Amino acid sequence: MGMTQTQKILAAHAGLAEVKAGQLINAKLDIVLGNDITTPVAINEFEKAGFNGVFDKEHIAIVLDHFVPNKDIKSATQSKQCREFANKYDILNFYDVGQMGIEHALLPEKGIVTAGDCVIGADSHTCTYGALGAFSTGVGSTDMAAGMATGMAWFKVPAAIRFVLNGKLPPKVSGKDLILHIIGMIGVDGALYKSMEFTGPGVASLSMDDRLSICNMAIEAGAKNGIFPVDDVTKAYLKGRSQREPVFYEADPDAEYERTIEIDLSALEPTVSYPHLPENTHPASEGKDIKIDQVVIGSCTNGRLEDMEAAYNILKGKHIAKGVRGIIIPATMAVYKECILRGWTTAFIDAGCIVSTPTCGPCLGGYMGILAEGERCVSTTNRNFVGRMGHVKSEVYLASPATAAASALIGCITDPRTV
Amino acid sequence: MGMTQTQKILAAHAGLAEVKAGQLINAKLDIVLGNDITTPVAINEFEKAGFNGVFDKEHIAIVLDHFVPNKDIKSATQSKQCREFANKYDILNFYDVGQMGIEHALLPEKGIVTAGDCVIGADSHTCTYGALGAFSTGVGSTDMAAGMATGMAWFKVPAAIRFVLNGKLPPKVSGKDLILHIIGMIGVDGALYKSMEFTGPGVASLSMDDRLSICNMAIEAGAKNGIFPVDDVTKAYLKGRSQREPVFYEADPDAEYERTIEIDLSALEPTVSYPHLPENTHPASEGKDIKIDQVVIGSCTNGRLEDMEAAYNILKGKHIAKGVRGIIIPATMAVYKECILRGWTTAFIDAGCIVSTPTCGPCLGGYMGILAEGERCVSTTNRNFVGRMGHVKSEVYLASPATAAASALIGCITDPRTV
Repeated sequence: MGMTQTQKILAAHAGLAEVKAGQLINAKLDIVLGNDITTPVAINEFEKAGFNGVFDKEHIAIVLDHFVPNKDIKSATQSKQCREFANKYDILNFYDVGQMGIEHALLPEKGIVTAGDCVIGADSHTCTYGALGAFSTGVGSTDMAAGMATGMAWFKVPAAIRFVLNGKLPPKVSGKDLILHIIGMIGVDGALYKSMEFTGPGVASLSMDDRLSICNMAIEAGAKNGIFPVDDVTKAYLKGRSQREPVFYEADPDAEYERTIEIDLSALEPTVSYPHLPENTHPASEGKDIKIDQVVIGSCTNGRLEDMEAAYNILKGKHIAKGVRGIIIPATMAVYKECILRGWTTAFIDAGCIVSTPTCGPCLGGYMGILAEGERCVSTTNRNFVGRMGHVKSEVYLASPATAAASALIGCITDPRTV
Repeated sequence: MGMTQTQKILAAHAGLAEVKAGQLINAKLDIVLGNDITTPVAINEFEKAGFNGVFDKEHIAIVLDHFVPNKDIKSATQSKQCREFANKYDILNFYDVGQMGIEHALLPEKGIVTAGDCVIGADSHTCTYGALGAFSTGVGSTDMAAGMATGMAWFKVPAAIRFVLNGKLPPKVSGKDLILHIIGMIGVDGALYKSMEFTGPGVASLSMDDRLSICNMAIEAGAKNGIFPVDDVTKAYLKGRSQREPVFYEADPDAEYERTIEIDLSALEPTVSYPHLPENTHPASEGKDIKIDQVVIGSCTNGRLEDMEAAYNILKGKHIAKGVRGIIIPATMAVYKECILRGWTTAFIDAGCIVSTPTCGPCLGGYMGILAEGERCVSTTNRNFVGRMGHVKSEVYLASPATAAASALIGCITDPRTV
């Protein structure tokens, strides 16, 4: 029996000719990632374990992104601890205020991760890099600590679900709508500890930003990782960007999949996950009666240039509804700057929105748009659990940037094809 | 005996031909101001007192600026209370996310305050509007509540200190350096409950942004208010901006001043207030040994267009020192947008800084740049008390935008004339 794309990568990193679903392996890591919240915990474990060196200063990434510029004394102390550690071990890929971006947007953009990589990150959305044809997954801070010291991690090889994508997404329907649709279909534990392997002729039509958004939310279906095959889109994205030589792994023709799901991209429509689970999906067109207080466009899921462009195309020359707060957060300094240079930022301002410096902020209830009791937010982020963005009696509706922007214009959940 | 400019305004608003220092008067208010922190307290008092209407919906300003987009559930709840109150009483000058700016930058910019006004605000830096030839002062939330209901407030008429300004500020020396110099000279209680009346031939050379910065910090010398005469600079600023007809009050030639202080503007140099009091002033040139971690350029004191320009002139084409976080916060959406249109924002980014949407944030330890233990910040804000921007063992050095920008470049306190 052959191996899936994920299994191929894991086998290669474990120095094995073959691995099987369920097998425990010890694999070599290309990148070990942490952020300002998880790295301090990892540093404490690192020191408690008596480690006094990192396996490779070029293969560790520490990104301050959740609460910087710091939101309180606690987060300031955490950032300081990260800085001191990064200085002590001369960590090459350390990103502080000014250079930073949201980790899962920054690492692909800077070429820190590349195709064929085996990556762990102390953040659940580390699965994002599957879009590049890498195996990447979220781990706890203890695993991060051990990873930083040894460059290795234990994995149970995941079984797989294959998603065969056919057709092409209609206008104003994006990768975010696809992943919400999938989670709605299989549920938040529908891919528990499995790899979600995206294949089929429809892949070619998906942009890299779409793929990053799709893999980003694999964890919201419980998956170990999500992964796309490497094609011309991937290669074009990696060219001149990748810090290391990419390696391309293909699934064997006889790879085993627990389940195969066919999806006709052309049949998808703008989709919204209602509170309080990503699987609670509804067509955006059915949300007319749901009045909203705030819209957030950004995050590791949807803060990239195409996401900003989708919002711009809806908002330009218009003004958001009275009573709605529009918060737009480009995910990295490069995206932030490009939005300025293209005139999008001033268009957002003229539309009545604010544009924040890159931060995870509101997504996880950190800052920069926390909700009061009874408030509703349409957000391009990845989780809409109870209290995720503030008060336990607030509500988060997950959507694409186009749907979020259209909803901001009208003041209720709105299908972007109608504005 | 004649009256000072402040006394003239108070007399007119109390319907009296003459007032004297120490006299208690009940004066008509032109604007009653509150922000997202103080207004909820005022609303509670307003409701507790049984008021069921505001004196004039056009003469109340509520500006959400301290913690918006909201930083936590508490601030979200406070903002929500402000919104509901503003909606209920149809408050004309209500500024929410998207339209907002830091109150003391926004009110002059939008022409909500004008020359000759009598203004109270539930924020200590309400004294800023003296730059326009208005009487304005900070009050508690209970006074704000009564002011919103009745349009009146009780004042004890302040005695006055006259500052006779001669000469002209040298290049890279600003109004901020002047007010820090004055506070260094007279102390943080040097003008306790007095009006600081700025006069003399040097006034004409001071820009409106300089004057706003100077009056903003009158409270840091303990003053009731600071005030400038109305001249061509004032009139040019008010033209086409003032929502109401300005009224010009001049001090009587025989007005009584408790003290007169002559200042030669040409002799001033870039000045820094060291921890932990604004009166602890030193020449910037003596700060070479003081290594810094962060620079904040913004706030109601120095977040206006000229402040941004001063920072731009120092930072353009350069990069801030490694290890320094540069945080630039235009004070209003208009300043923010103008910085983008002039290319300053991209220059700040290229210099390694971040640019935040308008907020009071870090100035009062709110968010967007809180300090950890042992960290030092050069800040263009107005207070450097113990723990003001974070940890009780952090340090704040108050300075002008030029000095702050120069310090960011070098990584220690730096005279902007040397970079």
